[in-house]
Amino acid sequence: MKRFQDESFRNSMKIRVDFNNMMEGFVSNGINPAEIEANEVLYAEAAASMVSKRGNMKWRELPFNQSKIVAEINAKVAGIRESCEYFVVLGIGGSALGPIAVHQALCHLRYNELPREKRNGPKLFVEDNVDPERMASLLEVIDLKNTIFNVITKSGSTSETMAQLLLVTDALKKEVGDDWAKHIVATTDHNKGNLIKIAREFDMDTFYVPDGVGGRFSELCPVGLLAAAVCGIDIEELLAGAAYMDKLCENPDIWHNPAYMMAALQMLAVDRGCNINVMMPYADSLKYMADWFAQLWAESLGKAVDNDGNEVYAGQTPVKALGVTDQHSQVQLYTEGPFDKVVTFLAVDNYRSTVTIPHGYDHIPDVAFLGGHTFNKLIQSEQFATEYAIRKSGHMSCTVTLPEVNPFTVGQLLCLFELMTAYAGELLNINAFDQPGVEEGKNATYALLGKPGYDAKKAELDAAPQKQDRYII
Amino acid sequence: MKRFQDESFRNSMKIRVDFNNMMEGFVSNGINPAEIEANEVLYAEAAASMVSKRGNMKWRELPFNQSKIVAEINAKVAGIRESCEYFVVLGIGGSALGPIAVHQALCHLRYNELPREKRNGPKLFVEDNVDPERMASLLEVIDLKNTIFNVITKSGSTSETMAQLLLVTDALKKEVGDDWAKHIVATTDHNKGNLIKIAREFDMDTFYVPDGVGGRFSELCPVGLLAAAVCGIDIEELLAGAAYMDKLCENPDIWHNPAYMMAALQMLAVDRGCNINVMMPYADSLKYMADWFAQLWAESLGKAVDNDGNEVYAGQTPVKALGVTDQHSQVQLYTEGPFDKVVTFLAVDNYRSTVTIPHGYDHIPDVAFLGGHTFNKLIQSEQFATEYAIRKSGHMSCTVTLPEVNPFTVGQLLCLFELMTAYAGELLNINAFDQPGVEEGKNATYALLGKPGYDAKKAELDAAPQKQDRYII
Repeated sequence: MKRFQDESFRNSMKIRVDFNNMMEGFVSNGINPAEIEANEVLYAEAAASMVSKRGNMKWRELPFNQSKIVAEINAKVAGIRESCEYFVVLGIGGSALGPIAVHQALCHLRYNELPREKRNGPKLFVEDNVDPERMASLLEVIDLKNTIFNVITKSGSTSETMAQLLLVTDALKKEVGDDWAKHIVATTDHNKGNLIKIAREFDMDTFYVPDGVGGRFSELCPVGLLAAAVCGIDIEELLAGAAYMDKLCENPDIWHNPAYMMAALQMLAVDRGCNINVMMPYADSLKYMADWFAQLWAESLGKAVDNDGNEVYAGQTPVKALGVTDQHSQVQLYTEGPFDKVVTFLAVDNYRSTVTIPHGYDHIPDVAFLGGHTFNKLIQSEQFATEYAIRKSGHMSCTVTLPEVNPFTVGQLLCLFELMTAYAGELLNINAFDQPGVEEGKNATYALLGKPGYDAKKAELDAAPQKQDRYII
Repeated sequence: MKRFQDESFRNSMKIRVDFNNMMEGFVSNGINPAEIEANEVLYAEAAASMVSKRGNMKWRELPFNQSKIVAEINAKVAGIRESCEYFVVLGIGGSALGPIAVHQALCHLRYNELPREKRNGPKLFVEDNVDPERMASLLEVIDLKNTIFNVITKSGSTSETMAQLLLVTDALKKEVGDDWAKHIVATTDHNKGNLIKIAREFDMDTFYVPDGVGGRFSELCPVGLLAAAVCGIDIEELLAGAAYMDKLCENPDIWHNPAYMMAALQMLAVDRGCNINVMMPYADSLKYMADWFAQLWAESLGKAVDNDGNEVYAGQTPVKALGVTDQHSQVQLYTEGPFDKVVTFLAVDNYRSTVTIPHGYDHIPDVAFLGGHTFNKLIQSEQFATEYAIRKSGHMSCTVTLPEVNPFTVGQLLCLFELMTAYAGELLNINAFDQPGVEEGKNATYALLGKPGYDAKKAELDAAPQKQDRYII
């Protein structure tokens, strides 16, 4: 029996959302519970939409409908873990941010630095940029003969990923010859696009991105699950954590629905001028959750028009921070700067290591007082102290606490933020699932690269106002 | 002769600031040159302050007054590069962000992954957090016998760094015995604080943080230079680049002073509601420049009161992004979201590698059109296209271009941003060199850890409003 099948394990691992420090009585311009009650109808309507639109939010079913896929992935990765030395994800956006965040959370913090026998699996590289220096450096540190590339693009038309595929295809043909396609696993749409054509033609191993699952909502499908399983993460437990949170967040009562309440509070904060949303994990393991969330929140809610065609220019800007590190970088601004942000702390009850600060330098009391405490106590005291300092200076914050960082709690966290984002989209009456603002830059790139059919865009670029020399120093 | 002594090298490596896309005629709510002219007196006064206060800005002299220290560092690191396998920086804030940024910019992008003979120096770890899982994982991947720790804290009272020092002192004593102090290099004040006492008592190698050089302005003193030199970076050229930019930025005419103009434009943008400052390098090598700048800008300008005691709650919030990666994460928000941000692109003319996208999959035109281009052309086209898309949607941006990423241009960049920040401080009439807002959290941490003398703070914490259960879900 898996531990997540035990109810007492699940209850002990429930993550908690604490929003005291957003409320009146805690911060000067805090939210009064009456404001939340006054929005009762709005919140209920949004909750009803989450139910009625569930059929279109296919990503919500991922924790429930993938037992067959999980078995396939686990069967596939057994061989990879044993024989391959490098597992390289080629993908960008959601195809990279999810795999990075989950790997950082659930693998050894210096996974790639460990000797092979402690890793029990290949080194992991996630390549989400096309910097030529980075591409060159990748080929210098991997051994193609012992590398599997996981090419991930749902559409099969992502320029960055397809350029990378061309590079590794060529390199593999030179290095391993006819077996080149055995070194590539494609994760893409089951039907549409260029990558599935290529995968079928060359008989590559393939996993599918289900219909209705967009990039930033795709971590819990094979996009994220394959790399996680390759690195030894229990993906069944990850999905079970997400399923657990999804159930919790079916509660239509906002006072008992952490996703809905967090979304509603952020929107009330936006109305108070908080156009900035800082996520500050107090754990290195959760550092890249803030990157993953940044895409989810920015790309889902950053919209010029609402569902009725009104110009709204919505969107709170996500900011990534790390505790305690950024206390020495950003907290000066957070406490003394403008009242324009909400800080969301991610806290951990029990770290997976306990490290004591040894006694020493006993004749120097300002150093010696640290001895005998643990680093655990130190980081948790600093988190508490920073929360306190930010509240005292009149700024809002909330704290999401994981009892421990494990696949079950990380699955909950992913699902919590996805539901919070979708619900915020309903409150704003915008489409949280498209990204029309990305097209302009894509098309301009195509025009610059001379892609057939982009002559008009090229002409438009050429006709843009000429830069003035006096504005260049 | 070093190449930076050649004037034609210096001129060819001058970095450029292009602010066309902040100006009227380029963006809808752009800045009119007349606005800049209207502020002539203000800008001239701030420029005069930069001259009159130069004696207090000791960090400005670092490019000019360290030839002896550079020689000492280079002599010291020769042995370290040859014999030591791991060089671990223990520091936080400016003691970490500078070393990380310069290492990422100027060393191989996968430096730690390279075999020893290609690195020609030890692996580098910069430990700027006290997460117990991270501390435990560090001790798992290094070999203490072949490790040098560079402990950096000017005050000698930074809890995080001193806790780390206690940990490694104890571990070294157990592993290498009496020689333990030979594995520690202290970088601290030459006179004040606990670390210098410890360093002298145990005869550790020591480098000094000069008087008047605060953490976030310390990269070009031994705080940053030692780790850089250990990794084979030409620190003389780095300083020469900074000296070159310092000279350029002595020009009192804002139209010819890139630091002053950038600061003035950002302040005009703040007046238009742009409380967010995004830095988006189009180069993996410059990724952590955005982190370094984030501290510089946030901690320097995030101030509750001005020099006359008025409550101002100043400070633009820095946001870190990476091109092209974040086109698939943040650009949707940047183009369609609120008009609340300025994007500063960091661009590169010549990357240090040229990588061709090979031809392939010729029967699929939507993939094949990429073949024959270079990754260089791809990333530069995307930078151009993103700048275009952001401008077209009416949002402001500027672009700082490095002809190449090398020590000379990185030195310029560091100096440019430092001067821009100091000048912005003058425009805001605030103290850009203190960080009073950090004290509250520090003191609360001391109280929680039972440091002698913090009983009153502990009592204050205990008397804080009790959290309410209904605000925890």
